[in-house]
Amino acid sequence: MYAPKVGDRLDDLDTPSMIVDLDAAEANIKKLMDQLLPTGLNIRPHLKTTKSAVIARKLVDAGARGGCVAKVSEAETIAAAGFDDLLITCEIVGPAKVRRLVELFRRHRGIRIVVDSAVGATAINDALATAGVDDPITVLIDLDVGLHRTGVQPGEPALALARHVAGLKHLRLVGVQGYEGHLQHLHDREDRRAQCLQSMQILTGTADALRAEGFAIEVVTTGGTGTAEFCATVPGVTELQPGSFIFMDTDYRNAVGTFYSNSLTILSTVVSQQGPRAVTIDSGLKSLTTDSGLAECKDSRYTYGVLGDEHGSLTWEEGTPSLSVGDRVEMIPSHIDPTVNLHDFYYAHRGGIVNEIWRVDSRGKVQ
Amino acid sequence: MYAPKVGDRLDDLDTPSMIVDLDAAEANIKKLMDQLLPTGLNIRPHLKTTKSAVIARKLVDAGARGGCVAKVSEAETIAAAGFDDLLITCEIVGPAKVRRLVELFRRHRGIRIVVDSAVGATAINDALATAGVDDPITVLIDLDVGLHRTGVQPGEPALALARHVAGLKHLRLVGVQGYEGHLQHLHDREDRRAQCLQSMQILTGTADALRAEGFAIEVVTTGGTGTAEFCATVPGVTELQPGSFIFMDTDYRNAVGTFYSNSLTILSTVVSQQGPRAVTIDSGLKSLTTDSGLAECKDSRYTYGVLGDEHGSLTWEEGTPSLSVGDRVEMIPSHIDPTVNLHDFYYAHRGGIVNEIWRVDSRGKVQ
Repeated sequence: MYAPKVGDRLDDLDTPSMIVDLDAAEANIKKLMDQLLPTGLNIRPHLKTTKSAVIARKLVDAGARGGCVAKVSEAETIAAAGFDDLLITCEIVGPAKVRRLVELFRRHRGIRIVVDSAVGATAINDALATAGVDDPITVLIDLDVGLHRTGVQPGEPALALARHVAGLKHLRLVGVQGYEGHLQHLHDREDRRAQCLQSMQILTGTADALRAEGFAIEVVTTGGTGTAEFCATVPGVTELQPGSFIFMDTDYRNAVGTFYSNSLTILSTVVSQQGPRAVTIDSGLKSLTTDSGLAECKDSRYTYGVLGDEHGSLTWEEGTPSLSVGDRVEMIPSHIDPTVNLHDFYYAHRGGIVNEIWRVDSRGKVQ
Repeated sequence: MYAPKVGDRLDDLDTPSMIVDLDAAEANIKKLMDQLLPTGLNIRPHLKTTKSAVIARKLVDAGARGGCVAKVSEAETIAAAGFDDLLITCEIVGPAKVRRLVELFRRHRGIRIVVDSAVGATAINDALATAGVDDPITVLIDLDVGLHRTGVQPGEPALALARHVAGLKHLRLVGVQGYEGHLQHLHDREDRRAQCLQSMQILTGTADALRAEGFAIEVVTTGGTGTAEFCATVPGVTELQPGSFIFMDTDYRNAVGTFYSNSLTILSTVVSQQGPRAVTIDSGLKSLTTDSGLAECKDSRYTYGVLGDEHGSLTWEEGTPSLSVGDRVEMIPSHIDPTVNLHDFYYAHRGGIVNEIWRVDSRGKVQ
C-alpha cells in the first residue's frame, strides 16, 4: 500500500503530490508576524486557504489568535481536529446549515459568526432558542466595503441590522467585519493602499456610527494577504485575516511581489514525450486550478499549458535542457485556495526529505 | 450530525450539494446504449467523469462492459469499491506509481493499462518481474491521433514500440488506444464528424499495420461523448469510452446539443442580497469550476458570475421574479469532470426526493 511517511525523500512520492518547502513557509509566517504583531492587532489567519488544524496551531504558536474559516462544515472539521477558536466569515443561511451551526456551537463555544441580513440573524437566533442553548453566540455585522459580495450596506442599513441583532437574545453583537477582497490583487501597490484606506474608512466609520448608537463594538476585522499591512495602519481596525501569505501563488506574487515566497508546489512527473521540445506532465485541471491564470513551472524555462483534467504540457526554447519521461518538476499554483482544496495531504519537506505530513482537514467542505 | 439519507427532500439538504436528476441520468444512459449497443461494440464508459463504482455497475447493468479510469489511484478506489474491470487510460510513469500498479494488479487481474514509451513499458515489465507476478498484464499501445497529449506517433514509432512491448514477458499486447479529445467540443457537427473520421483512420490504420507485423490486435478503443457515435461507424474500432453523457455540462451541451440532457446540478442557496437585481449564492470556485466557461443557473433568467472561492452572483433583468436570501437554485456545471471531483457525494433524486446517495469514490485521486 502506498503510504508516504516522514523521512521519505520527495523522490519516493507518487505524483501529483502537494509539497511544501517548510523553511520557506516558516519564513513567510515569520515575515507576517514580524510585520504585523508589533501593531498590537489580533492576527486571525484565514484557514480557507490552508484547511488544516495543524497549520492553524503553527500560526497560533507564531503569534496568531484564532483563525477564520469560510463555511460551517470547515469549522466542523477544523474544530474536530482540535482547533476551535474560529470566526466563520460567510453568512450562514438555510435550515440545514443553521442546525449544523447550532450543534457545532453547542460543542464549541469559541465559534463566532457574521450576519448581513435580519432574516439570517433571526433564523440563527430562533434555532438557538429552540435548541435551548443558553449562551449567546458571538456575532459580527458583515459590512460591504466595496467588494459587493456579501455584507450589509454601510450607513442606515448597517445600523438597522445592528438594532435588529441587538434585540435577539441568543446573539451577542461584538463587532463588524468588512473584507476588501476586490483589492487583494491590484498590481499597483499605491493604488491598492489608497483604495484599501477608502474601504477601511467605510469599515471604521461604520464601527464608530454603531458605537455612537451605544453598541459595544470591540472587534473590527478585515484584511487579506494583499492589504493586511495597510489595514494595520488604520486606527480602529482590531483584527486581520490574511491567509495566502503562508504558501502564496503566482496571482498573488504578480500583485503583491516577492515579500512572501511561493512555498507550495505540485510535484509532477513527465509521462509522455510529445515532440523535441514538448512533454506532457501528470498535472491537469484536477491538480492545478486555472481560474486565476495558469500554473507555472518552478523552473521558469519550461512553460505550462493545460491538456485537460489529468495532464498539462511543458514546452521550452531551443538550447534549454530537455525534459524526458520520468523527470519530475514542481508546479507553482496560480490560485492557492482552490488548488489546496483539490488535494488530501501536504508533504512538508526540508531539503527534499519529508518532514511532516498534514491532512487537508476541511478539503471539499463547501457547505 | 448532518447526515442526509434516502427519503429526505432536496429542501432538507445543506448547500452546496451535488444533486442528480435520476430520471434524466437514466434517460441519458438509455439513449447512449440504444444508439451504440446495436453496433456490437464494447461500451467501456470513462469513470474519470463519475468516479463512482455504483455508477459503474449501473452502466454495466445497462449494457456496458467494464470501465475506464484515468489514474492508478482511481483504479485502486473503484476496484476497492467492488468494480475492477478497468482500463487505466493514462500512462503509468514513476517508481512509486508503478509499484502501486503492481500491487493493484496482484489483487485485480482485470486491470488493463496503456503505454506510449519503451522506457515506460520496460519499467512496468521489470517491476512485475521483480514482484514475481506471473500473469502478464494486458497492455494497449496509446497512440496520438491528433490530440498531442499522450500517445506514441503513428507509423514507425508505434510499430517500434509494439515490437519492444512484444519482447517484454510480463506485458501482453492486445490492442491500441487513440483518444481524439481535441474534437469532443467542436461545435460544428459535420466538422466534428469529418475530423473524427480522420483520427479513426490513423487509429485503425495503425491497428492494421500492427496486425500486418503479426501482432494480435483485438482491442481498438477510442471515443468520447462528442464523437462516440462517429467512431462507432468506423470498421476496426472495437470499443468506446464515453463518460460525460450521463451528466453532461454546458460546454458539452453547447457543442453536442441536447441529445443528452444536463442531469447533474449543484444545489445552492442565496446567502446575501446585493442590490435590487443581484444576489450572492454559496457556490464559487470550490463548488463549480471555470476552466470551460461559467456555470449556468438552471433557471436561465438568472445569470451567474464568480465572486471568489465560496460565492457567486446571480443577476437578472427587470421584470424577472426576484431572488431573496434563503432561496435555492440549481447550477449547471460548465465542465462536469473537475466539478464532480470537488464533491464527496451525489444525491440522486426523483421529483425532489433523495432516492440514492453515491460516494464519489475516487474524488481527488489524481495519482
